[in-house]
Amino acid sequence: MAGDEGRSERLMDDTEGTDDALLPLRVWLALFSSVKQIEGVVRRNLREDFASTLPRFDLLSQLYRIPDGLTMGELSNRLMVTNGNVTGLINRLLAEGLVERLVDAEDRRVQRVSLTRKGRRLFATMAPANQAWINGVMAGLGTDDLRDLHRLLTKLKSSAAHHGQDTDSPRE
Amino acid sequence: MAGDEGRSERLMDDTEGTDDALLPLRVWLALFSSVKQIEGVVRRNLREDFASTLPRFDLLSQLYRIPDGLTMGELSNRLMVTNGNVTGLINRLLAEGLVERLVDAEDRRVQRVSLTRKGRRLFATMAPANQAWINGVMAGLGTDDLRDLHRLLTKLKSSAAHHGQDTDSPRE
Repeated sequence: MAGDEGRSERLMDDTEGTDDALLPLRVWLALFSSVKQIEGVVRRNLREDFASTLPRFDLLSQLYRIPDGLTMGELSNRLMVTNGNVTGLINRLLAEGLVERLVDAEDRRVQRVSLTRKGRRLFATMAPANQAWINGVMAGLGTDDLRDLHRLLTKLKSSAAHHGQDTDSPRE
Repeated sequence: MAGDEGRSERLMDDTEGTDDALLPLRVWLALFSSVKQIEGVVRRNLREDFASTLPRFDLLSQLYRIPDGLTMGELSNRLMVTNGNVTGLINRLLAEGLVERLVDAEDRRVQRVSLTRKGRRLFATMAPANQAWINGVMAGLGTDDLRDLHRLLTKLKSSAAHHGQDTDSPRE
C-alpha cells in the first residue's frame, strides 16, 4: 500500500501544475491511487476483522448473488484471475465448508460451485462491514460531493467505452 | 476485461436507486469499475502497439524516474508485487538489454537496476502514447468536468487517509 501510494504521489508531482493538457493524465493517476488506497483499507479490515482477503471476499460476493452456483470458468471470468488461482481459493473454501460442488442439471459433466448455508451466513456478516468501511472512507465527502463524483464517474465510463477504442482499433 | 465489467455492472444493479445511504458504496463500485475499464484500454494498447504489458510499463516508468536505479526490494515495494515477480520481469528486461545491473556505490553487496539507453529510449516512446490513450479515454469530459473530478478525487484521498483507519484501528 505505502509503496503504491508513494508511486502515485511521485507520478502526481511530475505532472503538478495548471497545464490543462496534463489534466486527463492527472485525473487518471488520482483515480488509480484512490482505488489502491481504498483497496488497502478494505484489505486491512478484511484481514483484521475476518482473517480474510480481497480475492476471497470477491469470490464469496459473486457466489452470494447466484444461488444456483457458477462454474470455475465463470468465476475465473468474473474475478479476472486465472483458473488456477480460482481453483486454489475454491479448494480452501470447500475444506472450510463454505462452498459445495453441484452437478449441473443440464450437463452432468459441468461442475458448479455454490455457497453453503455457512458460506451465505459468513458473507451476510461481511457485506455490511464492507459497506461501513466504505462509508468511513468517504466520510469526508458530503452528499452533493458523492452525487457529483458518481455522475462524473458514470460520464467517464461512458467516455472510455466510446473513445477508449479509437486510437488504433476502431470497433464501432 | 469483459468479465470484470460484467461484475461491476451487476454490483451496480444491486444498489440501483436513490437511497443516499448506498451512495458511498455506489461511488466505490463506479471508481473501481472505471479504473478496471481504463486499465483494460491501456493493457490492450500496450499489447497491440508495443507488444508490452502493464507490469512491464510500470516497471520501466519507475526506473525512468530514478536514473541512479533501484534495488529489487524498492522496485517490489513501488510496484506492489512480490520480489519473485519483479525478478522474472527484470530478467527478461536484462536479456533484452533494456536494463542493467549496477553495484551500489556505498554498499557493494547491494545490487541496483537501472535503464540502459535503449530502455530509456523505449520508455520515451511509450510515455506519450500512454498519455494519448488516457486523453482518448477522457475525451468525453470537458475541462470543467476534469477539474471537478480531480478536485473530488483529491478530497476523497484525503478523506480515506483520515477516516479509512477509524473503524477498528485508530492510528491518530
